[in-house]
Amino acid sequence: MPEHNFIAAAFSQPHETIPIWIMRQAGRYLPQYREVRSRVSFLDLCHKPELMTKVTLQPIDIFGFDAAILFSDILIPLAHLGISVTFPNGPPKLEPPLREPADVDRLNLYDIADKLSFVLEGIRRIRGALYDRVPLIGFCGSPFTLLCYLVEGGGSKDFTETKKFIYTYPDAASRLLSLLADLVGNYLKLQINSGVQALQLFDTWGGILSPSDYSRYSLPYVQRVFELCHTEGIPRTLYLGNTACFLHLLADLNCEVISIDWRTELTLAGRQLPTKAIQGNLDPNILFAPTATVIAAARTILETMRDRDGFIFNLGHGILPQTPIDNVRALVETVHTFRR
Amino acid sequence: MPEHNFIAAAFSQPHETIPIWIMRQAGRYLPQYREVRSRVSFLDLCHKPELMTKVTLQPIDIFGFDAAILFSDILIPLAHLGISVTFPNGPPKLEPPLREPADVDRLNLYDIADKLSFVLEGIRRIRGALYDRVPLIGFCGSPFTLLCYLVEGGGSKDFTETKKFIYTYPDAASRLLSLLADLVGNYLKLQINSGVQALQLFDTWGGILSPSDYSRYSLPYVQRVFELCHTEGIPRTLYLGNTACFLHLLADLNCEVISIDWRTELTLAGRQLPTKAIQGNLDPNILFAPTATVIAAARTILETMRDRDGFIFNLGHGILPQTPIDNVRALVETVHTFRR
Repeated sequence: MPEHNFIAAAFSQPHETIPIWIMRQAGRYLPQYREVRSRVSFLDLCHKPELMTKVTLQPIDIFGFDAAILFSDILIPLAHLGISVTFPNGPPKLEPPLREPADVDRLNLYDIADKLSFVLEGIRRIRGALYDRVPLIGFCGSPFTLLCYLVEGGGSKDFTETKKFIYTYPDAASRLLSLLADLVGNYLKLQINSGVQALQLFDTWGGILSPSDYSRYSLPYVQRVFELCHTEGIPRTLYLGNTACFLHLLADLNCEVISIDWRTELTLAGRQLPTKAIQGNLDPNILFAPTATVIAAARTILETMRDRDGFIFNLGHGILPQTPIDNVRALVETVHTFRR
Repeated sequence: MPEHNFIAAAFSQPHETIPIWIMRQAGRYLPQYREVRSRVSFLDLCHKPELMTKVTLQPIDIFGFDAAILFSDILIPLAHLGISVTFPNGPPKLEPPLREPADVDRLNLYDIADKLSFVLEGIRRIRGALYDRVPLIGFCGSPFTLLCYLVEGGGSKDFTETKKFIYTYPDAASRLLSLLADLVGNYLKLQINSGVQALQLFDTWGGILSPSDYSRYSLPYVQRVFELCHTEGIPRTLYLGNTACFLHLLADLNCEVISIDWRTELTLAGRQLPTKAIQGNLDPNILFAPTATVIAAARTILETMRDRDGFIFNLGHGILPQTPIDNVRALVETVHTFRR
């Protein structure tokens, strides 16, 4: 039986206390993180193993979360494809955007172990610093989500360029998605070799697709990624926004955990994903409510999932920058003092 | 039996050809609309019955849609509550935003028939100009969606202010929602008295809530609106984004049609809403694809819904400003030549 509650829950195995971590737990809502960021740019922070270690551990030390997540960004592996990836204030910028099949063929394949060695070094340092107190989660963006960024050249409201691209050039889209699946799968495998003990794949933008397009343009590549990084003892999680729209497609996916958003009812997800662990799903905005409301909302989730070994408490989306610290503390305490 | 296919389909009654209209069909994608807008501001356009008539009829004349929808904006009824509503380029701006319970008590109730007489006059003119060729749809925003605009002071990405408000001041939120439900319900009733032959309530932002919060903060007020405007022979439609997350809550709602987004599978919606007509649900971005792809995607929807009397073809969201006109024409022709 795994020694960490988080790993046990991810494999739907018995354990005592429900584990909790939160997406973007090492981030701007933390004064200690903002202090580090006041001296270094976001991109520099992602490139310096010592600072990555510092900010990865901050939320563990401050709140006692049950898992750490590597401090990095889903766009890091794209920078060496021959695309400029920058983080001006606001959304990221990728230049030039991919708009034609020929743009895909121009992408520069590279040696991940070499070019992304700073991430792998960061992982080794973080593992050393954690002393196995809690497991370390590695991550990457899904192939489809990375395609969105590459084609839009950044964030988007309607993802019109992405959809124009996939509907106009389905073959080039499939070539790009295959290339990205190999990149992501191999990158995650290297993360495991460097010490991460769990994986999360962020299909942040998968939820902009209709279910039938999701089945065509995202799911097969998620599956390919999970095949490539499959490793005994390392649970794999898929995060996907608007999860409720896609639940019927996820029951047989080759991963252990599905991380659901707050719009997706836990009981519905539990019923439709009988063999998976569920992670989620408090609305990050509830953390702006009075503390008593936060605690009540957390308890409702805990009561609902009491009997399911496969449950990890998390938010339904990343924590927001202005979130009050005291409510995060109250949330963690509520989860940790809950008796199953 | 109703004489218009649109009305028959909305009441799930037999009819020959599947009707089609599209959200924002009188809008910026149309050169003829842009021509009118080049001479008048958006807000002026909403206030001038003659111009409202002109742009409402444009898509009917150009494409032969099976329903016209009143040219107006969901924020129009808010302007007389004592809030400044402006449409600078980009998202609308509402000032001052509501942030405290006292802000709700300061709202100015008003005589709708008097202050919004220009809308009602627009409806009478449009009906006159349509000569009953196609029915005219009236509309308004749902109480929760209007609350979002009032509290955020405009659009939003995360709706943090809205959620702070409802979670911190649930009583003031419920007072505001009741006030808005009465306003919207009475306004829609006046629209019917002035000549609209169908209604659509836009719960544009309802989909930001978890299902349990949706049940508390949106649905009861939607129900109240539909009660207030219930009129023999006038079908009522609810549009709600991220519909799949909320299908299980909508089966018993007191309306005739549910308009679903492209993330929601038609068969799933059909199964979960056995007594409702379904409206939707082509991804508006598919209209940027090659014409053959548009036609194929439309045919898939038509084949799926062939046997359901209660089906109205529409997009899953409003048509986008850059949409190619020829694809809209091909879409309408595909629907109109489809044999059930």
